[in-house]
Amino acid sequence: MALVANANGHVLSEALSATPPAGDPEQVVDAMVQTTQKAIQNAGLDLQDIQGVGIAAAGGIDPYRQVVVHSPNLPGWADVPLGQMFRRHVDLPTSISNDANLAALGEQRYGAGRGVSNLLFITVSTGIGGGIIINGRLYEGRSGYAGEVGHISVLTDGPYGRSQTQGAWEALASGTALAADAQRRLDAGESSSLQAQVLYQGLEGITAEMVFKALEQGDQLAQRVVEQGIGYLASGLLSLVNVLDPEKVIIGGGLSNQWQRYIGPAVAIMREQAFAGLGRDLAVEPPELGVRAGALGAVALAVDAAAELGR
Amino acid sequence: MALVANANGHVLSEALSATPPAGDPEQVVDAMVQTTQKAIQNAGLDLQDIQGVGIAAAGGIDPYRQVVVHSPNLPGWADVPLGQMFRRHVDLPTSISNDANLAALGEQRYGAGRGVSNLLFITVSTGIGGGIIINGRLYEGRSGYAGEVGHISVLTDGPYGRSQTQGAWEALASGTALAADAQRRLDAGESSSLQAQVLYQGLEGITAEMVFKALEQGDQLAQRVVEQGIGYLASGLLSLVNVLDPEKVIIGGGLSNQWQRYIGPAVAIMREQAFAGLGRDLAVEPPELGVRAGALGAVALAVDAAAELGR
Repeated sequence: MALVANANGHVLSEALSATPPAGDPEQVVDAMVQTTQKAIQNAGLDLQDIQGVGIAAAGGIDPYRQVVVHSPNLPGWADVPLGQMFRRHVDLPTSISNDANLAALGEQRYGAGRGVSNLLFITVSTGIGGGIIINGRLYEGRSGYAGEVGHISVLTDGPYGRSQTQGAWEALASGTALAADAQRRLDAGESSSLQAQVLYQGLEGITAEMVFKALEQGDQLAQRVVEQGIGYLASGLLSLVNVLDPEKVIIGGGLSNQWQRYIGPAVAIMREQAFAGLGRDLAVEPPELGVRAGALGAVALAVDAAAELGR
Repeated sequence: MALVANANGHVLSEALSATPPAGDPEQVVDAMVQTTQKAIQNAGLDLQDIQGVGIAAAGGIDPYRQVVVHSPNLPGWADVPLGQMFRRHVDLPTSISNDANLAALGEQRYGAGRGVSNLLFITVSTGIGGGIIINGRLYEGRSGYAGEVGHISVLTDGPYGRSQTQGAWEALASGTALAADAQRRLDAGESSSLQAQVLYQGLEGITAEMVFKALEQGDQLAQRVVEQGIGYLASGLLSLVNVLDPEKVIIGGGLSNQWQRYIGPAVAIMREQAFAGLGRDLAVEPPELGVRAGALGAVALAVDAAAELGR
């Protein structure tokens, strides 16, 4: 997705494209450039009307060197100098950051976090990601990895999951983790309505969506899976709230659709257990910007960079 | 402790006093005022030579309202307006913060963290405390409780300890936690040289120091206690490093004397498991300022406040 917006986050145009399936860096950058040019055209503008470009990229991003260190979706990507490659085609000041970081910045600048100086943004879906705003600016840390909240450890002896961190939050409380736990319980012989679905409907495996649907229908296994997940989800929330003492927490991602059944109960535990009662009146809300959050965060990043350059 | 220092953290004088045993707020403030006046006198200065006062206080401190919300050491203290009370006697600009936060600021400004913009400071002793420096300034959060790293959750189903947080880091990895675990194991019938010490030397109970001494002498129970503690210690370090991606971590407190046996092995696990290898070359060091860290942080706080007032 490429979008053209003014400094207030007002979107003038948008253009979409698919990532080239092979994921070759040159081809991906070509597609990004074309989509950017299309969005500028759609807005009725020229390149010289554009003050700067912000890029939201998934994975491990070094925002200082503008390099994609690794990508979860594009396996061949290692140390790809995305900023440099993009600027070869589009000669504009370019800033890059992690997409979850930029979703945080987008919400803080134009969404549910407007007016909040210290914001914690969490996205709970197949994995768990996040971003931290301190004093109104994106906090990226030494390597650009600050806010990798999915990789905090909430169970010292727990599983490793995608990250190398033992007991990683996302290995226990993400949608993937809930689905895997349900599958493990089925494999161990626990009975559930999910079993029939897998057997007779030819499904490849359990999904978090199936677990929540089964829960809704009173399935006991699903209830155990979700209850345990709520405990893990609460632990991570507690850690983050106790360390960061934010003004507001925004929780998005696919599982935020299960606010009443999953996010809400974990937030309630956090409110009860946070240090010195600081969770009691803490604002916890869903995001406002939807799929555009990252792109709008990239707009804010470009706006901030332009302000620093005095443009 | 009261000390007089210039803006470079150079200490001109120091005065010590004991906290009045009853802990009555008026009496404590009187003692603070007297110690402050003595330190000023010791420096050969008058009150009008002093630009500002910084106060480091233990417990839950609201730095914005300058109130001690609760104190672990002074049970009667609840919502004590310390800043206001102090200024009734000493009419100078006064700033207040949590002592661990100020130890972090002290180390960043005048100690092991000099030149570091984003610093994580951790103190591991009877409890676990800490402080966070972001962009060269103390980060205090919404309520002044940011950096309460002892209350992150590293074991979802773990014990509650002092804080309300289940699986709180300090309930599992502090000196108190190690001693309690050793005691629990003794009570459960595990054999150890510690048993004889408790029985025949009339000691009141196990201490962390005794555990490490026993470990040194090859005691198996002590080894199990410390090994488990290292795992918990590593989990908390991992969470903090993955969230904050700091430039440097300073680890102090009584247990930092056990660097080789306790802190070091946990740091090694953190280096191995941190997200995207960001722990590998991360600087982890002991503090430099010793018992003066908090007081020197209070100096830095006063210096920052004076700078903001344009004095």
